[in-house]
Amino acid sequence: MNDAVSIATAVREGKVSAVEVTKAAIARIAAQDNQLNCFTAVTAETALTDAARIDREIAQGNHPGILAGVPFAVKNLFDITGLTTLAGSKINAENPAASQDATAVAKLKQAGAVLVGALNMDEYAYGFVTENSHYGATHNPHDLQRVAGGSSGGSAAAVAAGLVPLTLGSDTNGSIRVPAALCGVFGLKPTYSRLSRAGVALFSSSFDHIGPFARSVQDIATVFDALQGEDDRDPICTKRPPELVLPQLKQDISDIRIAIAADYFTKGAEPEALAAVQKVADALNITEYVTIPEAHRARAAAFVITASEGANLHLDKLRRQSPPKVSRPQDFDSATRDRFLAGALIPSSWYLQAQRFRKWYRDRVREVFQNVDVILAPTTPISAPLIGQQIMILDGEEILVRPHLGLFTQPLSFIGLPVLSVPIQRQNALPLGVQLIAAPYKEALILRVAAALEVKGVVSAPIV
Amino acid sequence: MNDAVSIATAVREGKVSAVEVTKAAIARIAAQDNQLNCFTAVTAETALTDAARIDREIAQGNHPGILAGVPFAVKNLFDITGLTTLAGSKINAENPAASQDATAVAKLKQAGAVLVGALNMDEYAYGFVTENSHYGATHNPHDLQRVAGGSSGGSAAAVAAGLVPLTLGSDTNGSIRVPAALCGVFGLKPTYSRLSRAGVALFSSSFDHIGPFARSVQDIATVFDALQGEDDRDPICTKRPPELVLPQLKQDISDIRIAIAADYFTKGAEPEALAAVQKVADALNITEYVTIPEAHRARAAAFVITASEGANLHLDKLRRQSPPKVSRPQDFDSATRDRFLAGALIPSSWYLQAQRFRKWYRDRVREVFQNVDVILAPTTPISAPLIGQQIMILDGEEILVRPHLGLFTQPLSFIGLPVLSVPIQRQNALPLGVQLIAAPYKEALILRVAAALEVKGVVSAPIV
Repeated sequence: MNDAVSIATAVREGKVSAVEVTKAAIARIAAQDNQLNCFTAVTAETALTDAARIDREIAQGNHPGILAGVPFAVKNLFDITGLTTLAGSKINAENPAASQDATAVAKLKQAGAVLVGALNMDEYAYGFVTENSHYGATHNPHDLQRVAGGSSGGSAAAVAAGLVPLTLGSDTNGSIRVPAALCGVFGLKPTYSRLSRAGVALFSSSFDHIGPFARSVQDIATVFDALQGEDDRDPICTKRPPELVLPQLKQDISDIRIAIAADYFTKGAEPEALAAVQKVADALNITEYVTIPEAHRARAAAFVITASEGANLHLDKLRRQSPPKVSRPQDFDSATRDRFLAGALIPSSWYLQAQRFRKWYRDRVREVFQNVDVILAPTTPISAPLIGQQIMILDGEEILVRPHLGLFTQPLSFIGLPVLSVPIQRQNALPLGVQLIAAPYKEALILRVAAALEVKGVVSAPIV
Repeated sequence: MNDAVSIATAVREGKVSAVEVTKAAIARIAAQDNQLNCFTAVTAETALTDAARIDREIAQGNHPGILAGVPFAVKNLFDITGLTTLAGSKINAENPAASQDATAVAKLKQAGAVLVGALNMDEYAYGFVTENSHYGATHNPHDLQRVAGGSSGGSAAAVAAGLVPLTLGSDTNGSIRVPAALCGVFGLKPTYSRLSRAGVALFSSSFDHIGPFARSVQDIATVFDALQGEDDRDPICTKRPPELVLPQLKQDISDIRIAIAADYFTKGAEPEALAAVQKVADALNITEYVTIPEAHRARAAAFVITASEGANLHLDKLRRQSPPKVSRPQDFDSATRDRFLAGALIPSSWYLQAQRFRKWYRDRVREVFQNVDVILAPTTPISAPLIGQQIMILDGEEILVRPHLGLFTQPLSFIGLPVLSVPIQRQNALPLGVQLIAAPYKEALILRVAAALEVKGVVSAPIV
């Protein structure tokens, strides 16, 4: 399948119509999604109406936008006008339909992209596997017995399977990067607060980011640029003027100081995950290592804060003492409920300690970025586990699979660093991801490095 | 006793020397503090050296500062060079001596004031009575059987007894205003973050304020102005340029919209506390009432946050699992320890809920201040209780005395409003306080109203 920018170019040049492209996407979804279970809603009718309007614009000689006619879909925690925002939950299914698109959805539509549906996820975005007890597990396109990763599992699998070239997801502790790695596509978690979250159901406000999944670095950069800009609807969204990344993509990268994350980021992983990092380092001629100090504590603190904030957000629904229609503990996914209940019992003193550590850690990592621009680390410690798999053996130790998937992503989102997970395809083996990590607001650097890796053929989306 | 500004004028005019003034203060402390127990340290030697330097400056024709030769003392949580900062604790007594004065201490010295000692308080500032189990209770100068209030009890009693004309204290939930009311002196809790807290032992960082106790409105304004200004040593201290209040004190107050706090602030108090507010309102010809909405929730949320933050700050000392020299639960004041332990067990979800409510409440109170400039409320619901008194009967209900003393102060410090407690002296009865409350950074308004009340003879310090 072509990437989004190629599709948009073909549509604008009249080589194919937006309606044809949209119909093809809907047909692929109809043919394959029974098996994959990426979509929780397909908006075929409005998609075809939107596509027809794009075609009319082109016929009239107007510029229909940089993503003209590109089918896209969004994790079902983004508001879509006329649909109920599920956030992976059964309880939320009873909410009224959204009266307004999320800002990110509106911006992509404005750029000419055509929304074709909503995508499966872990309930309330709390998970790394998208084994949703209400809406079923999303299956990994590389091996249907395996998970797609989560919580944005539907978003990653839909791109990996070629159902659509472009999706949006959200990342709190790794929910964009983990499924991007396990499905073998590009997934960008931008700097905290750089893109508007208006109209997005939150999990843990001080951690939540939104970002794109795509088949190419150019697509990621194009979507990132389209989503930049301040937003009155989102009080935490940055007031900085946008800095477009797309025009910088082809710049030489010899001025970018790159190093491999040492210590914590080399332990507790399967050798294949470290080999993926080594492959990227070799392609870039990088031998330097750098230490991100106390990353294990950052992960522990991230667990404490997200569990606390998530539990607080859903407390009324969790409490048996709440009024009858509000109290719904039995209607949670049991895996989510148990973790929220645990989160509701965390002492405030732990929460405060974690927040205090967070300030310290942010300052230490800022120092690290005085000597390096981009850091390489594995995205996940393993490739996609089996659906239903609870335990794995690593270095002779039994380890829980689900939380372990966030081992290398959590310490980075903890302080809002921008991270791109680039996909490494492997012969007769499942794909893996490598994180390219930069200081806040330095998305351009990681995307330039990714573009260079793409040219070298080291990173790429799966062929479909 | 004279107020601070009169003393400084006499010193500058050569009518009395700074050394004479200082010696007199030290003599008063020696004569009376055995009974009162305001002081935990008297710095007679350095005080006399400092006073002698002021006298030399005057002899040489230099301007020695607006507070030249005024003896002052500070709550023992302010750093004083060469002394260990106790913060009312036995554990802290083992700390090394401070190597630098707290910013507020340094600023008053720079203005010519002479530091004569450190003052008693509740352990770690967690209390409203100054019944300190390590350093003894501070006694109310109006009735030695009664408490001085807390946690800045030594600061209030020292001014009320005329030992010194000027002291500094700190206020988290009422720790300046409560003792000011019970001892019958002026006590200002400025806007949150307006004065530097550098070199001050904290209790609950998002609530802690420092401020002065004095015998006149002019003294309060003089000290407040001397303490204003940004401070590199305190990252949360405001960057706003100082706005001097002293020059505004005599302005006509007919443009200031004043109202009496209704509902919550009229309940749960002895009639005498409400009568004190009425006396102030009558003097100002005020009959309007205004409601601060959900004040009872603000108090509950203030309890949750301060207990959580305080517990977190002292957690290592409270934990039996800490290393032997760190773990010191047995060395806390038992009343403090029990509340910190309870605070350590508060669920993080409550803490987050309280912080979320705080934002809502701040917005509501901001709306209230669109229609009013200064609000009147009782400072405490009762006059000074007996030392050791646990229970009081109010409206036929048994109520715990200690926490109840903060009933009317907590909902205001919760969102950092500036409040001056003005003293009402009563014949054959204990003094009481009335809070003058304004919007953030509007200290000038409450001090102007207080100055007008002082001219009318409604508010005043006790005669000593």
